[in-house]
Amino acid sequence: MPSLLHHPLDPSSRLVRLMCAEYGVPLDMEEIKPWLREAELLEINPAATLPVLIGDSDTPIVGLLASIHTIEDLYTPSAVEGLIPAEPGQRAEMWRLIEWVIFKLNDEVTRYVLEEKIVKRDQRGATPDPAVLRVAKANLNEHMLYFNWLFATRAWLAGDTMTLADFALAAHLSTLDYLGDIDWGKAGETRDWYSRIKSRPAFRTLLNDRVVAMPPQRGYADLDF
Amino acid sequence: MPSLLHHPLDPSSRLVRLMCAEYGVPLDMEEIKPWLREAELLEINPAATLPVLIGDSDTPIVGLLASIHTIEDLYTPSAVEGLIPAEPGQRAEMWRLIEWVIFKLNDEVTRYVLEEKIVKRDQRGATPDPAVLRVAKANLNEHMLYFNWLFATRAWLAGDTMTLADFALAAHLSTLDYLGDIDWGKAGETRDWYSRIKSRPAFRTLLNDRVVAMPPQRGYADLDF
Repeated sequence: MPSLLHHPLDPSSRLVRLMCAEYGVPLDMEEIKPWLREAELLEINPAATLPVLIGDSDTPIVGLLASIHTIEDLYTPSAVEGLIPAEPGQRAEMWRLIEWVIFKLNDEVTRYVLEEKIVKRDQRGATPDPAVLRVAKANLNEHMLYFNWLFATRAWLAGDTMTLADFALAAHLSTLDYLGDIDWGKAGETRDWYSRIKSRPAFRTLLNDRVVAMPPQRGYADLDF
Repeated sequence: MPSLLHHPLDPSSRLVRLMCAEYGVPLDMEEIKPWLREAELLEINPAATLPVLIGDSDTPIVGLLASIHTIEDLYTPSAVEGLIPAEPGQRAEMWRLIEWVIFKLNDEVTRYVLEEKIVKRDQRGATPDPAVLRVAKANLNEHMLYFNWLFATRAWLAGDTMTLADFALAAHLSTLDYLGDIDWGKAGETRDWYSRIKSRPAFRTLLNDRVVAMPPQRGYADLDF
């Protein structure tokens, strides 16, 4: 069974977990706090990032892009429609939105929320900076407007079928949701989409996540949130 | 002929240009300053990022990941060995290092240098912040040590053959080199590698780049730098 070095609230780890769950690949999970830069992680990945997938070969698969491509190559079950569309235009639209989520949304929202609310818990005397969290929240509102606009004209993020781009967005939004940073009352079309993707069996693994001394917001695991 | 919305010093645009040149795909080039957020770009790409590849289909290919995958799918000539290795382990190592370059090196070095030295030229009264540039330079030194360490044991960034990871790194280092931010005297093994990749025909297009009122550092286009 492949094992995954991950952190429960790391969105890249969550994306890989969703992908594996959808493809029916069981994972041995090992929790890591990458910001502690422990030797165990640095030896495998000097970038000190997650996820790291340890498969059948001796060489670990390091990082999000390598993991996505390896899982797609090795583990897509032939019986299931894959998460990467065959039609070139749809595939390009999927990569555009994956890039949006893993670069832009991460850069403007998720990384700040995680730094302030999670990483700082391990730094003696550090407390979340409300000014940073305010900027992240304002940025998130702009992103939600764009996602609402997309979901007003399409069933899934990159078009009419569910793709890896949906899992990328779900990975980030579920982390922000755990931490209570999403106002679902104002989330419009994105709420309907999230409700659909949250009900998928692949999502169950994420809904059981708990971070020590930081329980999720009340509706986190609720399918009727 | 496909056309490319690009900026001469944008590393993601440079990566796509190198890839197309290597595969023998001619490009119509249209220069854009993405930080001005002009309507022409925003209509195509609300993220206001480059590159945007406009191919035969009506729909533009937006962003680095979508462009890479589209070029690989549509334009790899059958006569040439592709830039993405067939062997799964080598391919995972290539993606690991592409991610290193486009996330980590960009995030810790290139984006700051571009912001301070290029973007600020278009902001009335703004000048480069020496403190930011000092941090970027210190970060670059750490990255160069890692690249030197890799190149001490392998001919190319991801292994024994040249891959897209080499082009990713060359795209970033060539931008930094244009701006005079690389001390080649201290660059060790990375200098030897850069000398090899700079001599490739695919590189010529980059060496002719000029930004208005900001000529490249003296050795930029020199193959014997």
